[in-house]
Amino acid sequence: MTGKLFIVGTGPGNPAQMTPEAQDAIAVAAEFFGYGPYLDRLHLRADQRRIASDNREELDRAQAALARASQGVDVCVVSGGDPGIFAMAAAVCEAIDKGPAEWRQVDLIITPGVTAMLAVAARIGAPLGHDFCAMSLSDNLKPWGVITKRLRLAAEAGLVIALYNPISKARPWQLGKAFEVLRAVLPGSVPVIFGRAAGRPDERIAVIPLGEADPDRADMATCVIIGSLETRIVARDGKPDLVYTPRSFTGDSR
Amino acid sequence: MTGKLFIVGTGPGNPAQMTPEAQDAIAVAAEFFGYGPYLDRLHLRADQRRIASDNREELDRAQAALARASQGVDVCVVSGGDPGIFAMAAAVCEAIDKGPAEWRQVDLIITPGVTAMLAVAARIGAPLGHDFCAMSLSDNLKPWGVITKRLRLAAEAGLVIALYNPISKARPWQLGKAFEVLRAVLPGSVPVIFGRAAGRPDERIAVIPLGEADPDRADMATCVIIGSLETRIVARDGKPDLVYTPRSFTGDSR
Repeated sequence: MTGKLFIVGTGPGNPAQMTPEAQDAIAVAAEFFGYGPYLDRLHLRADQRRIASDNREELDRAQAALARASQGVDVCVVSGGDPGIFAMAAAVCEAIDKGPAEWRQVDLIITPGVTAMLAVAARIGAPLGHDFCAMSLSDNLKPWGVITKRLRLAAEAGLVIALYNPISKARPWQLGKAFEVLRAVLPGSVPVIFGRAAGRPDERIAVIPLGEADPDRADMATCVIIGSLETRIVARDGKPDLVYTPRSFTGDSR
Repeated sequence: MTGKLFIVGTGPGNPAQMTPEAQDAIAVAAEFFGYGPYLDRLHLRADQRRIASDNREELDRAQAALARASQGVDVCVVSGGDPGIFAMAAAVCEAIDKGPAEWRQVDLIITPGVTAMLAVAARIGAPLGHDFCAMSLSDNLKPWGVITKRLRLAAEAGLVIALYNPISKARPWQLGKAFEVLRAVLPGSVPVIFGRAAGRPDERIAVIPLGEADPDRADMATCVIIGSLETRIVARDGKPDLVYTPRSFTGDSR
């Protein structure tokens, strides 16, 4: 008899933004696999076991969780945000795809969550209010040439662009290079939102024109959203500017 | 003294997928503006007022809510899913942008939610596990030529594509035409997920190759996700197939 394998998203980090469904899954599971800081967001009981691993060990973690579930243990794999967006659901599927036949019999229950770009967007207005894309800027698992091609085509398509994993100690130059690629397609006036730790006590949100956007404003906890030609800024006396992308397209439709 | 204007997302429709933050906002507000079926998801008290309007009257609804908030009433504008994704947050920002100066003084509190594509993805595996875009297929507010251009560029970029508003009585042919545009760029074997009412009792999820995808499988409650060349299907005995897009790019990087 195999155990259940829950894959939960904690949301952006504010407990009020985690769904009851994720909370219920956490209450049921016996063993928890995840990146330490995400596991720290949970309030586990003394009878629940915590197996923390490094941020870059996603496939190993997925395999360890599947092995325990196929032994009959109810396990929980924990992601920040939503588990389906640049997170653990893909790693678990990949482990099942490549793993022993019995792993396909594990009961998989994935609970969606609020992913970072949605939390950032909610704090600033509605920058994702029309067509957009989400891309990981990490070139650990895909060639840099694929990333620049996608950035260029997305900007040409008029999509707002949300960048996950914009920068890290091991990847210091990629965000600056991405801004260069985008400046070749988009005017410097397009707003760039640096949304750090949205909804958490250490939140920091800034809006900077693309022409002046400095990659040093981002860290690993930042989601960077680059507007399109349609994206607008609404100034408000004594309140932060709103940034939104209108529902209607009014630009050049060639 | 102006009132507060909350913009909440109910999530996909399963109450266990609505955040506590959204629930708290709903408890505080006095008047609720939204599309009837979304308001039906709330359990309002007798002292809370319900102002339902049609799905296509987003700007009027936003203006009505802002007018009440600037009179000092705490109001709540209700979206399904996440309010920032093809929903009411952009309409409220647009109404503020075009409206009287006093509307800029209204306290705006947007609570993010689980948007449809995340709920669908969680039910099938991790189709959005790598770079993707989200597009509205409605040509009510943008020219059809812009939509086909975006579809083509997104497919050329290798992005998985999530389509919102795929079909309606007034827009019967657009989804079929979108599949045609995509078949010119992508092989017919690419999986298409028709995700209807994910997480609700009337949920219906189907995976069909692009070459055989029939637009009649979609309705207004469906989010359609079109895979990329990288997207994989994992068959499981006695369980539904998993569909996921790997974290690593292994294809042609030209």
